[in-house]
Amino acid sequence: MIKKILVANRGEIAVRVMRSCREMEIKSIAIFSEADRTAKHVLYADEAYCVGPAASKESYLNIEKIIEVAKISQADAIHPGYGFLSENATFTRRCQEEGIIFIGPNAETMEAMGDKIAARIRMIEAGVPVVPGTQENLKSVEEAVELCNQIGYPVMLKASMGGGGKGMRLIHNADEVEEAYTTAKSESLSSFGDDTVYLEKFVEEPHHIEFQILGDKHGNVIHLCERECSVQRRNQKIVEETPSAFITPELRKDMGEKAVAAAKAVNYVGAGTIEFLVDKYRNYYFLEMNTRLQVEHPITEEVIGVDLVKEQIKVAGGEVLQLKQEDIQQRGHAIECRICAEDTEMNFMPSPGVIKQITEPNGIGVRIDSYVYEGYEIPIYYDPMIGKLIVWATTRDYAIERMRRVLHEYKITGIKNNISYLRAIMETPDFVEGHYDTGFITKNAEYLKAYIMRTSERAESIALIAAYIDYLMNLEENNSGLAADARPISKWKAFGLQKGVLRI
Amino acid sequence: MIKKILVANRGEIAVRVMRSCREMEIKSIAIFSEADRTAKHVLYADEAYCVGPAASKESYLNIEKIIEVAKISQADAIHPGYGFLSENATFTRRCQEEGIIFIGPNAETMEAMGDKIAARIRMIEAGVPVVPGTQENLKSVEEAVELCNQIGYPVMLKASMGGGGKGMRLIHNADEVEEAYTTAKSESLSSFGDDTVYLEKFVEEPHHIEFQILGDKHGNVIHLCERECSVQRRNQKIVEETPSAFITPELRKDMGEKAVAAAKAVNYVGAGTIEFLVDKYRNYYFLEMNTRLQVEHPITEEVIGVDLVKEQIKVAGGEVLQLKQEDIQQRGHAIECRICAEDTEMNFMPSPGVIKQITEPNGIGVRIDSYVYEGYEIPIYYDPMIGKLIVWATTRDYAIERMRRVLHEYKITGIKNNISYLRAIMETPDFVEGHYDTGFITKNAEYLKAYIMRTSERAESIALIAAYIDYLMNLEENNSGLAADARPISKWKAFGLQKGVLRI
Repeated sequence: MIKKILVANRGEIAVRVMRSCREMEIKSIAIFSEADRTAKHVLYADEAYCVGPAASKESYLNIEKIIEVAKISQADAIHPGYGFLSENATFTRRCQEEGIIFIGPNAETMEAMGDKIAARIRMIEAGVPVVPGTQENLKSVEEAVELCNQIGYPVMLKASMGGGGKGMRLIHNADEVEEAYTTAKSESLSSFGDDTVYLEKFVEEPHHIEFQILGDKHGNVIHLCERECSVQRRNQKIVEETPSAFITPELRKDMGEKAVAAAKAVNYVGAGTIEFLVDKYRNYYFLEMNTRLQVEHPITEEVIGVDLVKEQIKVAGGEVLQLKQEDIQQRGHAIECRICAEDTEMNFMPSPGVIKQITEPNGIGVRIDSYVYEGYEIPIYYDPMIGKLIVWATTRDYAIERMRRVLHEYKITGIKNNISYLRAIMETPDFVEGHYDTGFITKNAEYLKAYIMRTSERAESIALIAAYIDYLMNLEENNSGLAADARPISKWKAFGLQKGVLRI
Repeated sequence: MIKKILVANRGEIAVRVMRSCREMEIKSIAIFSEADRTAKHVLYADEAYCVGPAASKESYLNIEKIIEVAKISQADAIHPGYGFLSENATFTRRCQEEGIIFIGPNAETMEAMGDKIAARIRMIEAGVPVVPGTQENLKSVEEAVELCNQIGYPVMLKASMGGGGKGMRLIHNADEVEEAYTTAKSESLSSFGDDTVYLEKFVEEPHHIEFQILGDKHGNVIHLCERECSVQRRNQKIVEETPSAFITPELRKDMGEKAVAAAKAVNYVGAGTIEFLVDKYRNYYFLEMNTRLQVEHPITEEVIGVDLVKEQIKVAGGEVLQLKQEDIQQRGHAIECRICAEDTEMNFMPSPGVIKQITEPNGIGVRIDSYVYEGYEIPIYYDPMIGKLIVWATTRDYAIERMRRVLHEYKITGIKNNISYLRAIMETPDFVEGHYDTGFITKNAEYLKAYIMRTSERAESIALIAAYIDYLMNLEENNSGLAADARPISKWKAFGLQKGVLRI
């Protein structure tokens, strides 16, 4: 029985994990950096230990210090959250050595999935589709042409050492192979000092679709359906939803089975995620496995009706998974928006600082996983995400309407944030109609910008109009047939002219 | 199509209704009394009109003024919320006369269910069980004995004009009839100037179980299962849950069918509630129908997965109910606690005043329907309920654990409130085991009181112990084998000694 858990993380996910601990009557232990003395996870925990200076490397990534705290505090288990040490096999192994339960898969599974090439081979063996291509060094133009013909166009030529688009060439047909091969090789050599290149099928209009997996120590593995995570900016997810509007019931069943096969192939224990790319023809390819809880796990919890952290803790303690695949049913629709302290008008630059005022939405179908409070100073050292806003509703349309409503209710002052940007996404036709892929943000950049400008201008003009109406009403007061106490009183009159509280 | 709704209410329910309006892109109109100028529903609405002085009679119950505002603001419909004019047939009829849609049943249905004796006769005709007894004037001791024998003991003798227990006598067997009859009659005469008495079967260890009903204008009626509302103090519900731990699947099906029959018997349109008493043998009896939304409607929304206000608006607009009886499935378990500004140590006296600080819980499975904010002054004129805390979880046990967790997270300062009282209920064995009826609060009064005292004493001693530990730690600091930055720092040290934030 696990009675005490050290949460090796900070921010909303640390609080999220501690909440489930408290509900399970498990004591929680916080670790914190010197910059996080006043953070909510420290307040929330039953015990809290400082593990080092602000820099993550010296605190939240300091394996030996964390192990030391776990031993002093007599923790039975460690929950790594996401990020930081959550996919660090060395840390997992150190926990194993010290007899501390690591809430997640074992080190071998983590390593098997952490090595992309080895994982790819394992997935092929397990019958899970991968992006067609070759990971090996191309030796000649002739070989490249032959392989391109086999893979089928379009094909992407990539530098093995590549990154940031350097050494990459998109090939549409056989005629383009030679030039692509020659220029990519020389670019790669000059950029990375290595001219190894390989080929990969170019996935057209890809969706990022991931499947939630749960496995226990007794060989049971189930999936909890998909999450659509294609609203991304520079590979950072912004909005996630489930079910995906793009996935058919047949495809869901098929992909779900493959996701289970993938997890079984590495003896997966705990909560994990199989990420797929799905092209416009609904072909799907294994991308990678995240061997931990995802940021966006709450949308699965809402639609499936499960507490993933509780499940993680139970299977880590050796319990048999009580959920069966046939019990897993999607009900309604959930959307998550990531609320970030960032300046959307200044290239999404993080905007740390003191939160002056915060009004969080509530009422039907709303969940907030956050960790900030009024007067809290967001440190500059960590991720700018301050919380997640999750809505549930019976249908996708209702969920979008609910998200608009709650984004309207959400007010944060003192720091810049992306709420107006998220509102713009909720109004973008491609999103509303459910027709979007990972190119969504790029494709709609101008629309999003214009929407934000239009609404902020509108807010100003509404405030002016409101003031004018008040003025007119004061003039007309005595002429009105209405009793004086029944005349319309705008909210601006009741509250003073506060632009911040206007509905626009 | 309804495009604009006047919400003839205040407080949390007004905000609740407006939220669904906003999600449906329907404009909402607030009415408010002079005491409610800064209330949240005024802020939330698209338009707001003052309708009179603080006293409800002159504002929220002022039918003609409200109708006038509806006409000026060109409202298509009026949502009455609960309380105030929600079950006032005169108001409903005035709406009908003015061509304004009243979101609820028509005046005739309301009257049919409002008259208790007429409703009883209708229910008997519809085959719905009622509490056995006679509503007629007993003429002699002999008649009383005969009827008591027919009804079956125990029987309650009641004064027709009675109230507050006056003129009431519990009869256990035939020998007790004569004395009960004579004394009740004379007591009734002296108290009410009328000696009419009647008999009713005494329901032993009754549960208050109610069924949620939805009907449209096309003759479709469905039920959305039950709510267990037996945790009551002086007939005021405090905690509600669904499913009821006392109701078997067969009984649920049977009672649900009777609830639908009851609603159909009066051509019910909209959301309504059939209240039953269920005795310890699981016999059930129709008690009354509430022809409006209930305070506790959110627990049904959470477990059935429906937005009752949206459904109300849709059927009021003439839409055919899309939900079918066979689609209605309970998932998981929901509990609601009513958060009140009251002094539980001073006989639950209302505690109006200014809210200094408020921290509302959030995270998985939590919903708050409230209307207060920091700096808001709760007026003395209205109901002391400031909000409702609703949790959902996969099982009843998990829901109780979650409610404990969120009650711990909930902090309100500036006014007295019942949060510690609600926490005590969540720890009471009768509640935890699901063995309780309407006698719960009376039966557990001493336990509840002792629990509250114990925990507040514990909070004080924890604070003292924490201070002492800090003192010891400072002494031992230099002797510790641990690096200085890895030593345990209690949360009291991180935050200063704040009793309010302790977990106890």
